[in-house]
Amino acid sequence: MAKSKRKKIGLPPGSIIFTGKRKVEQVLIHYLEFNETQLNEKELSNDSIESFHEPVEEFIQWYDIRGLHHVELIEEIGKVFKVHSLALEDIVDINQRPKFEEYQDGLFVTCRALHFDPIQKGIKTEHVALFFGNGFVLSFQENADDLFTDVRKRIQNGRGRIRKKDASYLAYSILDSLIDRYFLVLDEVESCMENLELQITQGGHQMDKSDIHNLKQEMLIFRKTISPTREAISKFSKSDHSMIEDSTQIFVRDLYDHTVQIMDIVETYRDTLNGLQDLYISEISLRMNQVMQVLTIVTTIFVPLSFLAGLYGMNFENIPELRVKYGYFILLGIMLTISISMLIFFKRKKWF
Amino acid sequence: MAKSKRKKIGLPPGSIIFTGKRKVEQVLIHYLEFNETQLNEKELSNDSIESFHEPVEEFIQWYDIRGLHHVELIEEIGKVFKVHSLALEDIVDINQRPKFEEYQDGLFVTCRALHFDPIQKGIKTEHVALFFGNGFVLSFQENADDLFTDVRKRIQNGRGRIRKKDASYLAYSILDSLIDRYFLVLDEVESCMENLELQITQGGHQMDKSDIHNLKQEMLIFRKTISPTREAISKFSKSDHSMIEDSTQIFVRDLYDHTVQIMDIVETYRDTLNGLQDLYISEISLRMNQVMQVLTIVTTIFVPLSFLAGLYGMNFENIPELRVKYGYFILLGIMLTISISMLIFFKRKKWF
Amino acid sequence: MAKSKRKKIGLPPGSIIFTGKRKVEQVLIHYLEFNETQLNEKELSNDSIESFHEPVEEFIQWYDIRGLHHVELIEEIGKVFKVHSLALEDIVDINQRPKFEEYQDGLFVTCRALHFDPIQKGIKTEHVALFFGNGFVLSFQENADDLFTDVRKRIQNGRGRIRKKDASYLAYSILDSLIDRYFLVLDEVESCMENLELQITQGGHQMDKSDIHNLKQEMLIFRKTISPTREAISKFSKSDHSMIEDSTQIFVRDLYDHTVQIMDIVETYRDTLNGLQDLYISEISLRMNQVMQVLTIVTTIFVPLSFLAGLYGMNFENIPELRVKYGYFILLGIMLTISISMLIFFKRKKWF
Amino acid sequence: MAKSKRKKIGLPPGSIIFTGKRKVEQVLIHYLEFNETQLNEKELSNDSIESFHEPVEEFIQWYDIRGLHHVELIEEIGKVFKVHSLALEDIVDINQRPKFEEYQDGLFVTCRALHFDPIQKGIKTEHVALFFGNGFVLSFQENADDLFTDVRKRIQNGRGRIRKKDASYLAYSILDSLIDRYFLVLDEVESCMENLELQITQGGHQMDKSDIHNLKQEMLIFRKTISPTREAISKFSKSDHSMIEDSTQIFVRDLYDHTVQIMDIVETYRDTLNGLQDLYISEISLRMNQVMQVLTIVTTIFVPLSFLAGLYGMNFENIPELRVKYGYFILLGIMLTISISMLIFFKRKKWF
Amino acid sequence: MAKSKRKKIGLPPGSIIFTGKRKVEQVLIHYLEFNETQLNEKELSNDSIESFHEPVEEFIQWYDIRGLHHVELIEEIGKVFKVHSLALEDIVDINQRPKFEEYQDGLFVTCRALHFDPIQKGIKTEHVALFFGNGFVLSFQENADDLFTDVRKRIQNGRGRIRKKDASYLAYSILDSLIDRYFLVLDEVESCMENLELQITQGGHQMDKSDIHNLKQEMLIFRKTISPTREAISKFSKSDHSMIEDSTQIFVRDLYDHTVQIMDIVETYRDTLNGLQDLYISEISLRMNQVMQVLTIVTTIFVPLSFLAGLYGMNFENIPELRVKYGYFILLGIMLTISISMLIFFKRKKWF
Repeated sequence: MAKSKRKKIGLPPGSIIFTGKRKVEQVLIHYLEFNETQLNEKELSNDSIESFHEPVEEFIQWYDIRGLHHVELIEEIGKVFKVHSLALEDIVDINQRPKFEEYQDGLFVTCRALHFDPIQKGIKTEHVALFFGNGFVLSFQENADDLFTDVRKRIQNGRGRIRKKDASYLAYSILDSLIDRYFLVLDEVESCMENLELQITQGGHQMDKSDIHNLKQEMLIFRKTISPTREAISKFSKSDHSMIEDSTQIFVRDLYDHTVQIMDIVETYRDTLNGLQDLYISEISLRMNQVMQVLTIVTTIFVPLSFLAGLYGMNFENIPELRVKYGYFILLGIMLTISISMLIFFKRKKWF
Repeated sequence: MAKSKRKKIGLPPGSIIFTGKRKVEQVLIHYLEFNETQLNEKELSNDSIESFHEPVEEFIQWYDIRGLHHVELIEEIGKVFKVHSLALEDIVDINQRPKFEEYQDGLFVTCRALHFDPIQKGIKTEHVALFFGNGFVLSFQENADDLFTDVRKRIQNGRGRIRKKDASYLAYSILDSLIDRYFLVLDEVESCMENLELQITQGGHQMDKSDIHNLKQEMLIFRKTISPTREAISKFSKSDHSMIEDSTQIFVRDLYDHTVQIMDIVETYRDTLNGLQDLYISEISLRMNQVMQVLTIVTTIFVPLSFLAGLYGMNFENIPELRVKYGYFILLGIMLTISISMLIFFKRKKWF
Repeated sequence: MAKSKRKKIGLPPGSIIFTGKRKVEQVLIHYLEFNETQLNEKELSNDSIESFHEPVEEFIQWYDIRGLHHVELIEEIGKVFKVHSLALEDIVDINQRPKFEEYQDGLFVTCRALHFDPIQKGIKTEHVALFFGNGFVLSFQENADDLFTDVRKRIQNGRGRIRKKDASYLAYSILDSLIDRYFLVLDEVESCMENLELQITQGGHQMDKSDIHNLKQEMLIFRKTISPTREAISKFSKSDHSMIEDSTQIFVRDLYDHTVQIMDIVETYRDTLNGLQDLYISEISLRMNQVMQVLTIVTTIFVPLSFLAGLYGMNFENIPELRVKYGYFILLGIMLTISISMLIFFKRKKWF
Repeated sequence: MAKSKRKKIGLPPGSIIFTGKRKVEQVLIHYLEFNETQLNEKELSNDSIESFHEPVEEFIQWYDIRGLHHVELIEEIGKVFKVHSLALEDIVDINQRPKFEEYQDGLFVTCRALHFDPIQKGIKTEHVALFFGNGFVLSFQENADDLFTDVRKRIQNGRGRIRKKDASYLAYSILDSLIDRYFLVLDEVESCMENLELQITQGGHQMDKSDIHNLKQEMLIFRKTISPTREAISKFSKSDHSMIEDSTQIFVRDLYDHTVQIMDIVETYRDTLNGLQDLYISEISLRMNQVMQVLTIVTTIFVPLSFLAGLYGMNFENIPELRVKYGYFILLGIMLTISISMLIFFKRKKWF
Repeated sequence: MAKSKRKKIGLPPGSIIFTGKRKVEQVLIHYLEFNETQLNEKELSNDSIESFHEPVEEFIQWYDIRGLHHVELIEEIGKVFKVHSLALEDIVDINQRPKFEEYQDGLFVTCRALHFDPIQKGIKTEHVALFFGNGFVLSFQENADDLFTDVRKRIQNGRGRIRKKDASYLAYSILDSLIDRYFLVLDEVESCMENLELQITQGGHQMDKSDIHNLKQEMLIFRKTISPTREAISKFSKSDHSMIEDSTQIFVRDLYDHTVQIMDIVETYRDTLNGLQDLYISEISLRMNQVMQVLTIVTTIFVPLSFLAGLYGMNFENIPELRVKYGYFILLGIMLTISISMLIFFKRKKWF
């Protein structure tokens, strides 16, 4: 969490230092320019900084940059699009808290992509940053996987309003597709929880004792992500920056509603997990109680009987009962009586 | 909860996708138009989109649409009454969080109908959406059951002020009848809780160990529903939209008070359930304590006696006590003394 | 709590339905009119609606109506004093949440009278409503007991400023006498808590296991009452309605301070009760620990000894020890040594 | 807490009733008047109401009244300095919540003096009230002990700015000396907590089981005191009343910072105490676990051995093993083997 | 925490009293003056108060004072730079809560430097104060260690914008380097927590039982530090004091974001620690359960068998079974059957 921050300690603020591990061999840059009627798309090479050019009037430009380790490249892009140095710092800081910031030359959003790792049963998060202004959107992400296929397809198909609107709507669409994916992660968490509940109520031992703890940790991370995201989207939706069209704002408000809904679900899941923990603990107590009852029933019945048997196993010369003819059988009868009355006593106490 | 959201991932915002399971064979549309003196009512057929017509001046129109799977129909209605595409999206999204939204051509409220399922002992929720403007109300619901019989009867009877007022009052009445039903559900929950408390304090085993957990879950769902509903009604009551009469607002504020009251009750019930959980756990501990005490009393009394018996059951050639004439009886006396002093000791410790 | 709400489900808002149980045979109406120099007082009969007359200039009128089942009467009164229909609905709804509402023709406050039932050891709440305007106060309560003797006496004696001030001051005085009584209830709760603490720390069994739970429930109810009351009084104190004299407001602010103080005490008591619960649970654990230690000491000492005794009780033909002359005494010595070392071991572990 | 409120129930608001127990035989009044160059000091007698005179221009007057039972005297003082009747009521109400109130003729602060009683190990609180205006300060306290020696000494020595400034600065200084003393109490609480932690981690039995509970109660009281005090000081620091010099406000803000700091410490201490409780409970569980392990080890080893011994103590005529020559020694060998394997098993389970 | 406050009780506000322990033999003063092109640096001697001179136009001056016990020196400095006496008081009060204060002649920030002590495994905090105005920054710290090497190096190298900007930027840089170090401490805490989790899930006994408690305490201290720091930085970032350049404010806002992020992490860590505590407690319960099961299995199997053996060890003259030829072997068979059925029973209950 806080670990990779260490790299930057002692450097001046605004230092553009990549704080992550290099996850891509080469920076991938997907370029797309479109307007209502036209659409051009190409992969830009790593070195062709010159291929970045200032926004032009007739097109909306989208640079989708994947891989953040090539700091010089990012600085170059920053110069072309006049990205503030603090924004650049946040772009390459993979631990950056989600936030929305207005600069003179553009708007800046950072956010996290979430997905559920089915093997390690944990949530993975990836740092994503957007910078957009008049006629251009820059999107930055840590890994090489294409997070925005949906959006790109929609542009290619000309489906929806995306082709008719401005860069702020494109930025919104990218954020929307990120946030939508949070619901998938919540689905996975929910089925994990259902599994856990089943295991607990069946009292099986197959349950790993730290399962609840791990899930709670995941929800902590989720909350730590969604809570500032909600704030950022809220600021976005309230921004009256000239670069955001009014008709976009209603969509951003809708997106804000989604983040609120996710926050709700996360809080509910956390309460549910606390409930499961309580259930688990009372389950353990109940089992212990049951074990104790078995122990007590057996001990309480046989210890007095054993005593009686021991009594008549003594070697005193003068124990008159031993010479009674049916003494043994009388004793057996007494023992039976004792056992039965004990059992009735325990039955009444509802111990079995 | 989050599950049916999955259908929509990757689609552009404003996509009108039904996120539920089709629960009705055919969409039912109940149409009602009325003014202070007149009242017409009919069932509209599924296909007769043409039967939808723009609001007319002399009547208040109410289209009560039950079943949301026929997306085309809903889009058609949307066109006729100029419903914003984001509102249409929310109408067919059965997981939509309760909210109030103002659009230029009308006001939009989503809400949830709650009822208590007596068989599964759980709260069922159903998605309801309202869109209303000058002279018309559109109500949408997931299932075919008539949720608004009360309101309809009141209109038919001409009882109350409903016939004299505008569409916003009708919308309010519909919401009011939904929220009123929440109290019924709270009643059911309350009797469940009373039942539980009885079972816990009687210490019976008949209690299902996950009963408290389940009820807590139900209250989580309830809170997740009522909390945004309260917010939505609050926005409604504060709205100064021209389509809401001033004299209606005082009623909406009253409705808002009801949601606050429900919220209060829900919070109180949650605290009560936590209290019950504590009671349950201390009950388990107390029972365990009791079991332990029985075990300890029996063991502590008989183990030393058994030892004594064992001692004189040894086969040493030279154990002088064995040859004492009344040795056996003396020993019995000693044993009795030990037992009685133990019992007094336990009595003093209040173990029985 | 929510139960009596059921009666009203399906009725139009503003329906004036008594939601309680009829607790008085006949509605009692105490009428009092006064100014600085004069004072008239009479009991009004049930039917004499005509005896209600609009406020007159020279007197402050106070109608104290006890019993809410006679809905028609209340509607009549409502007409005479122009009480809004929503206020009338709240007057006869005995579950109404405390609130303050401004209407054009008067101000409306609902509140709850609390008293501690010494037999059932629980808090009883009673619904009280006030409607006051220029020169008149209407007070409504559920039961026949006189809640406002203090205020009435003060008017009769001409003590305090009550005779010189307007209706809003009278309304304030009535509320003040209600809220003052909350302190008495808190006193009772405090002595219950002190009792409980004594019982817990003395570890006695005489304590009913659900006592803490019950008291916590009472405090939940108390909080549910005081929290909206505080809000209502706050609104009252901030109201700039022309019917409230400025010099009254300073008193209402003082009353508001009282509600805040009560809220503080309630929260403190809740924390204290949680603390008592923790104390109780750790008490149970400690007792269990003690029981376990007794069991363990006895078992651990005697089980090995019994084994030794059993060993020499075996019937092997060849057990040389048995034939040693003082074997029995040597064994007794060994047994004693074992017991003593065990006791020392337990002593060191501070088990007794 | 709420108890002494009872005295006042049923009285009109503004009734000046002393709600405490009379703690001083005679009211002590210390009078001090000073300006930059002059200083007069005297003890006023109880009856010499006439010695109270309205503020004079050339001096700052400070009346330090100790003992609140002499209500008539306080009413007289009230008349001389135009203290509002509600303020008078609060002066003699020893349960008054700390607050700051602006009246036309002066400013009113109530507060509590705290000190730690080393014998009963509890926090004692004492009601203090200040009323100050142009050129005078009235301080009221419950007991006879001199709470403000520091302030008085500073005035006598002419140390600090106190002699050069106005009455509001004197009032501030008095409050400051009260709040400073809270730190002393917190010191005592801290050393109590350190003691407790030591006792818990050493697992000793010498610890009184309700120690944590008592300390938590003390912190509840402390919080109940400091929280409204902070509010009051905050209001004081924001007041723009003409009787407060601007240069005083910066000091009051500093005092406010102190109350915030105290609040912080109190909250931290409460969290610490909760942590100690958790530590204590897990300590009990650990001990129980240990006790159980000893019991289980001993029982598990000796019960099977005893069974074997019992087996060969049976009196069957035909038990071939008994006649084997070294049968006894073989059995001893078997028993030893069983014991050792058990011990290895427990060792592996890390039970000892 | 609160302890060293004691020294000051009874003194007038604004008394400049060093509340710590003297940690440095001699006050160290590092002086540095710079502008875009020039840089002078020297160590000032303790006594050379005269070497402090009022800010000059052409340079930014930075006095880095280490050691706070020499109160006269600090008072002298205060006079030269017109530091308000309350600020001076806070400079030498090592327990001062982090805060930001605007004075006419400069801005004042206090803060705490944190570092993790690897030996005592605890967080150490050190009081740091900054006072800055036009062209000068005074930094004060408790100990002699150089906290600001990074900043100094950056100035020396002329790296970053620090040489081109004003004193407020220098002050910001100093704060930034302090806050950056918080992340290092969080790293240490995180690895401690990971260690703890490993120890708990492995159920080893090597874990010190108060480890979680200690870490929770550390996080309490951390929160107590970061929470007012965040507030202070927030005030700084919103200040419109003429001494702060607009272009600096964007950096201070970034710093504020860092404090929010740290606060987030701290809260997450606290939740994690609570989760670990729960895990630990359920781990203890599980172990106890396991121990109980072993005890119960062994006891339940052998106690009845022992009873049977005891039965036939009795010395009754007439026990027919004893004379049956293969009675002994039949009994052994019966015992075996009993044991096996018990084992099957426990197996089914999943006790082993």
